[in-house]
Amino acid sequence: MKNTCFKQLQEQALEANLRLKTEGLVMLTWGNASAVDRNAGIIAIKPSGVAYDKLAWQDMVLLDFDGNVIDSKLKPSSDTATHIELYKGFPNIGGIVHTHSRWATVWAQSLMPIPALGTTHADHFYGAVPCIPSLSKEEVVNEYEKSTGAKIVKEFESAQIDPLFMPACLVANHGPFTWGKSVNEAVNNAVALEECANMAHHTLYLNKDAELPAYVLEKHYSRKHGPNAYYGQKRVY
Amino acid sequence: MKNTCFKQLQEQALEANLRLKTEGLVMLTWGNASAVDRNAGIIAIKPSGVAYDKLAWQDMVLLDFDGNVIDSKLKPSSDTATHIELYKGFPNIGGIVHTHSRWATVWAQSLMPIPALGTTHADHFYGAVPCIPSLSKEEVVNEYEKSTGAKIVKEFESAQIDPLFMPACLVANHGPFTWGKSVNEAVNNAVALEECANMAHHTLYLNKDAELPAYVLEKHYSRKHGPNAYYGQKRVY
Amino acid sequence: MKNTCFKQLQEQALEANLRLKTEGLVMLTWGNASAVDRNAGIIAIKPSGVAYDKLAWQDMVLLDFDGNVIDSKLKPSSDTATHIELYKGFPNIGGIVHTHSRWATVWAQSLMPIPALGTTHADHFYGAVPCIPSLSKEEVVNEYEKSTGAKIVKEFESAQIDPLFMPACLVANHGPFTWGKSVNEAVNNAVALEECANMAHHTLYLNKDAELPAYVLEKHYSRKHGPNAYYGQKRVY
Amino acid sequence: MKNTCFKQLQEQALEANLRLKTEGLVMLTWGNASAVDRNAGIIAIKPSGVAYDKLAWQDMVLLDFDGNVIDSKLKPSSDTATHIELYKGFPNIGGIVHTHSRWATVWAQSLMPIPALGTTHADHFYGAVPCIPSLSKEEVVNEYEKSTGAKIVKEFESAQIDPLFMPACLVANHGPFTWGKSVNEAVNNAVALEECANMAHHTLYLNKDAELPAYVLEKHYSRKHGPNAYYGQKRVY
Repeated sequence: MKNTCFKQLQEQALEANLRLKTEGLVMLTWGNASAVDRNAGIIAIKPSGVAYDKLAWQDMVLLDFDGNVIDSKLKPSSDTATHIELYKGFPNIGGIVHTHSRWATVWAQSLMPIPALGTTHADHFYGAVPCIPSLSKEEVVNEYEKSTGAKIVKEFESAQIDPLFMPACLVANHGPFTWGKSVNEAVNNAVALEECANMAHHTLYLNKDAELPAYVLEKHYSRKHGPNAYYGQKRVY
Repeated sequence: MKNTCFKQLQEQALEANLRLKTEGLVMLTWGNASAVDRNAGIIAIKPSGVAYDKLAWQDMVLLDFDGNVIDSKLKPSSDTATHIELYKGFPNIGGIVHTHSRWATVWAQSLMPIPALGTTHADHFYGAVPCIPSLSKEEVVNEYEKSTGAKIVKEFESAQIDPLFMPACLVANHGPFTWGKSVNEAVNNAVALEECANMAHHTLYLNKDAELPAYVLEKHYSRKHGPNAYYGQKRVY
Repeated sequence: MKNTCFKQLQEQALEANLRLKTEGLVMLTWGNASAVDRNAGIIAIKPSGVAYDKLAWQDMVLLDFDGNVIDSKLKPSSDTATHIELYKGFPNIGGIVHTHSRWATVWAQSLMPIPALGTTHADHFYGAVPCIPSLSKEEVVNEYEKSTGAKIVKEFESAQIDPLFMPACLVANHGPFTWGKSVNEAVNNAVALEECANMAHHTLYLNKDAELPAYVLEKHYSRKHGPNAYYGQKRVY
Repeated sequence: MKNTCFKQLQEQALEANLRLKTEGLVMLTWGNASAVDRNAGIIAIKPSGVAYDKLAWQDMVLLDFDGNVIDSKLKPSSDTATHIELYKGFPNIGGIVHTHSRWATVWAQSLMPIPALGTTHADHFYGAVPCIPSLSKEEVVNEYEKSTGAKIVKEFESAQIDPLFMPACLVANHGPFTWGKSVNEAVNNAVALEECANMAHHTLYLNKDAELPAYVLEKHYSRKHGPNAYYGQKRVY
């Protein structure tokens, strides 16, 4: 199986990784994006530790759902096992982003979910963005990255959260993961999450009792998502 | 009635929408600007959900005060009904801007007006920038965007605030709206509001009792506005 | 007396005004810089309300110490009278900058001096940067801008502060003024002041008892200033 | 001994100094980077007070471990003696960076170490980044810069900290120093330190009891460093 079969997938993954930089979500090499081809069972992901401005689409490492790398001299992101678990557990998502973006990471380090305090949040996330609890020592020592993904999936399942209604989470002590129907949408959600994290932090400083009425959350989320959405154009211009 | 009749109006609206991006007031597609031709009864507004760097002047959607779209394949901003209500209620304004700019939104999410704490504020806003209370569930479910505009106008009327002396408000849980004699002035006011919101937030941290003497507010506002203004040039250079 | 006689002075003033923008110290038209030719008794200052990117050196308004404008169609900055008072009261300074830069303005709005908490501060300012008290109603109503300058000079005199050792002050409720031997140095001091204001704000959050030993202040200030300075090159490269 | 013998060393030092600016770590001339050639016993360091955009590789001042300048018309950084002490005391480091970057300096001014609160920190620093106590009056007056370096080395020795596991420190009241196997790595560590300092500050605001489990610190540090590291590529692409 040749790389060139998945050029489009790799190009989407590349563009998403480059946007992490231009959107101000990453410093140094602190983030990665991946895209999946569900029919082929193939993921394209950023190579580990390579600077964004050195990346070409051919550098996006291709691998299957068992983590087998296909025809690449580069090692995939060290977070690859987390991505694979998320793709397995969330069958409707098409792309994943992981960053250490500042304000989302501040909430993750604070071990706290990001509350929905305004319509900006409601436009993207249907409720508080969950903070997945710290991994146990055993989970960290044994297959750390796989355990991280498995824990996210398990938390979403036990809380009965639909990952397309809540396309983001924080991993305690660590930072955010976001996803979407496409990897481009996953980047948009990472941008939105970072800004909402920033605003929530400063909102609570001014008014620790601030909250968003449930009917405003409902209204704004459904303006942009679901069968009655009326935001945006029917096709992309 | 052809689009081309309103090319100048659309160009003004386009320039204002592009400034939202270059002034750092919007992320993704989180903001919109409109301009009005009072004689013709026509508004030009950003199309919904289209990226700023894709916009041409022809994309600015033209509509009348009843919300009828004129000769456009694009849907207007989802906030259009709010703009129309403001144009109806505030007959002297020529342009409107809505953003989710960070610090103004923080105050809106905090459900608090932005107090006048310095001359930067006084140069643009004659007093505290009001925070329009949250809409009721009925207002949100039925004609949400129209209700938002109507509530702003009603609040200004009941508090006897002249919208040209206070060319801005916050909508609780949501974010800022600004306006001006022209849409370019509305953008200037959005820039000023964002910076004043930022500075007010951090001023109260240092000194929660900070306040601006009324005579300084009076002096600075009248330096820039009204018959005795002496700031700026008599004509634009 | 023709403008062209003072081309060099106007060019220095222009360059300083443009740096206000590139250094991130001003938004819209919220700041101005001036340079003085002491021998000729002539000041070159930004015209009022003109955007920085529209300025040419010929636009820098020339005036004498009585405020008489020389051969210009443009009105000088509305803060001109403050600049003149400072040039009269501080005979060794060659340039002045006024901005509403964010963090310095936050301290001014908080009505508080900026304490010297680190060597960055000590490298530029020999002690706490004073906050000139709010003007009285009479001072604001009558010759506001002249009163502002006169009050700064009076406060420095009564506190026996040498304006070259403390090339900055805050005007309460308003914002910072800085100066220097040249207008370029005045801009450098405006940059330094803004950063020190930012860091002091956040330092006090972490440790409200933070302070800088007097002997470190002494050492750092004298590394860069006075007869025993050993920072920098003997001539500019 | 001619400058040209050390062109590569000077080029590395130049590139690092330029990155201080592009990474947003310095304003004006507030920072310096140096690289060492251990075999030759030669250091290349930024000249004092020269603007970054004026620097050429030939301007990087060469000196030996006794501080003797080799064939340069420019004076070396005023912090040179600190660099020399660090090179002497930490024999495995290849480059040093000193800045007044905002958030690291805030912690230094607060006289507090930066706690390890997340995996971003753990990826670069194996524990809290130490804050070296304020120098005594005697240390400041006599050979201030040399004393600063000596104090850092002494503190690391007495606390038995390996400088390659903790490639950073704060100097109380002053700001950060970072280092690495190369000067480029020292810049990376300065970037990481600044971001971790920022995030730690805001994390403690949200949750003053936030902490990172020791086993996560261990795991993340060893992912990137030491014999079992598996982050990045085996060679640079």
